[in-house]
Amino acid sequence: MKDVILGIDIGGTNTKYGFLDRDGISLAHGEISTTSGDTVHDFLRDFYQEVHAKFRKIEDEARLIGIGVGAPNGNFYTGTIENAPNLKWHGSVPLAELLQTYFKVPVYLTNDANAAAIGEMIYGGAKNMKNFVVVTLGTGLGSGIVVNGDLVYGDDGNAGELGHTLTNVKGTGRVCGCGRRGCLETYVSATGIKRTIYKLLADSIDYSELRGVSFNDLTAEMVTQAAKRGDKIAIDAFEYTGKVLGVKLADTVAHLSPEAIFLFGGLVRAEEFLFDPVRYHLEKNLLPIFKGKVKVLPSGLGLNNTAVMGAAALAWKELER
Amino acid sequence: MKDVILGIDIGGTNTKYGFLDRDGISLAHGEISTTSGDTVHDFLRDFYQEVHAKFRKIEDEARLIGIGVGAPNGNFYTGTIENAPNLKWHGSVPLAELLQTYFKVPVYLTNDANAAAIGEMIYGGAKNMKNFVVVTLGTGLGSGIVVNGDLVYGDDGNAGELGHTLTNVKGTGRVCGCGRRGCLETYVSATGIKRTIYKLLADSIDYSELRGVSFNDLTAEMVTQAAKRGDKIAIDAFEYTGKVLGVKLADTVAHLSPEAIFLFGGLVRAEEFLFDPVRYHLEKNLLPIFKGKVKVLPSGLGLNNTAVMGAAALAWKELER
Repeated sequence: MKDVILGIDIGGTNTKYGFLDRDGISLAHGEISTTSGDTVHDFLRDFYQEVHAKFRKIEDEARLIGIGVGAPNGNFYTGTIENAPNLKWHGSVPLAELLQTYFKVPVYLTNDANAAAIGEMIYGGAKNMKNFVVVTLGTGLGSGIVVNGDLVYGDDGNAGELGHTLTNVKGTGRVCGCGRRGCLETYVSATGIKRTIYKLLADSIDYSELRGVSFNDLTAEMVTQAAKRGDKIAIDAFEYTGKVLGVKLADTVAHLSPEAIFLFGGLVRAEEFLFDPVRYHLEKNLLPIFKGKVKVLPSGLGLNNTAVMGAAALAWKELER
Repeated sequence: MKDVILGIDIGGTNTKYGFLDRDGISLAHGEISTTSGDTVHDFLRDFYQEVHAKFRKIEDEARLIGIGVGAPNGNFYTGTIENAPNLKWHGSVPLAELLQTYFKVPVYLTNDANAAAIGEMIYGGAKNMKNFVVVTLGTGLGSGIVVNGDLVYGDDGNAGELGHTLTNVKGTGRVCGCGRRGCLETYVSATGIKRTIYKLLADSIDYSELRGVSFNDLTAEMVTQAAKRGDKIAIDAFEYTGKVLGVKLADTVAHLSPEAIFLFGGLVRAEEFLFDPVRYHLEKNLLPIFKGKVKVLPSGLGLNNTAVMGAAALAWKELER
């Protein structure tokens, strides 16, 4: 009989889950539509039915001791999801409390990027680190910050919004969904690199296989594949993306002096096209006392099921306090 | 008989010290030249002689239980002063170890800004806060960051260098003593506001009482006094200084979501000329979830002897762990 945590990754379209032991081994896992039903209550009814049935298959060998949830706009302090733009559930959703009434075990909830950081600490490349930062590159740019071995939630649970640091102090730059201009994630994210591709296609007359693709059809994966085939515009877009990220991460290092910065998410598949410029421009822009000290690494969690692992890791970490 | 800490503030010219109890009451204090003798050993011999004599006057009522030191480039982890440009002692100076051989009590050392942050937590305006930032405005801009009730030292002891965050990602802006361009402290510090005055005097044709003052003679205090007399250039310089600081502090909030940001140092005497623009531009540049939450406050330590109080607070905090 071993203790397991139910890790849940709430996404805009699908919700993934898995029963994980302390070593990150999944005893059972699955996926369910997040958009079934109109309310969070409809969703939870379906979710409980499916997950409970799955658990009965492993209940002879596993004891459920807690639940960890990674969710967009998830707040650790309140256990709520706050006005998540990509979810059907509006306003403030007390998801931790609702899950607890179904499963009768402690529930811990945070946002996706914080969960990724804890996953890195419990299961990934940061097992022996006390000070590090995880940057998640998806549709936007999220981040989780660990200081002295603990996640930084800040006064209100909302710390770690590096995607909304500003690339200049003049209030200029690309318009962001948050209503401001020049936020880091308008340059550095799957959406950001698409915007950069379009800027480069406008400014240059170079050939590019991406000239035939509409903005709506373009994906970060297509940019990665084009770069691997030697497409100059795609390579330049990674160089620019890496430069902006590297320079802004120098600010993060000036705040926190982390041992490492982990990059996480689809764009990481571009490997050297992204990592080389990030490392070069970070190093170039560091204050001398920090030079040569900060590692920029791909997530040690791999690319599969990482969000579920992060969510489970959150609960392991809290239950072991 | 009460326990006291010897707080020491090492400055480029003078070193101040005081024997402080847990409430911050000074039982005895004094000052000695930092530049007496050529080496740190010469200095420490003189320092010990003076301080020991002072202690003998209070030894019937006080028991020395520890020493806290705030020093430029002081590193908490190693107890050393590392290549401080304003001190005569070169290289890496193991000051904590040397003081311990003289005084035979535990010695804790950190840089000035970190000491100010701990002073704020133990004696000042942050007594009940777990997450806050202190920004010290002197010749440069220093900072101390507190997360979850502990100072952030980072992996190498050098965290909290907000003065060297960058005002833009293009590598342009004012030349900084660190060798880069556009560092925050080239705009926001006593030196930074002097540079801004000269920029404004060059750009405009407005009357200003500061047109008769050379760069070398100009002080931040003169700018403050001119602003109080209604000098437009001086007021505009504070507005610009506050704007740059406010916008960059929005990045700090995005990292850490602190409850408050304390401003500390001589420029704070300018009161509303500095605080109003800082608050306005910080608020304007915050991500919506942070708006209306972060207080910008003057240090609660007052303006006298604060560095010695911060140094003593460091030792109180460590001894109470």
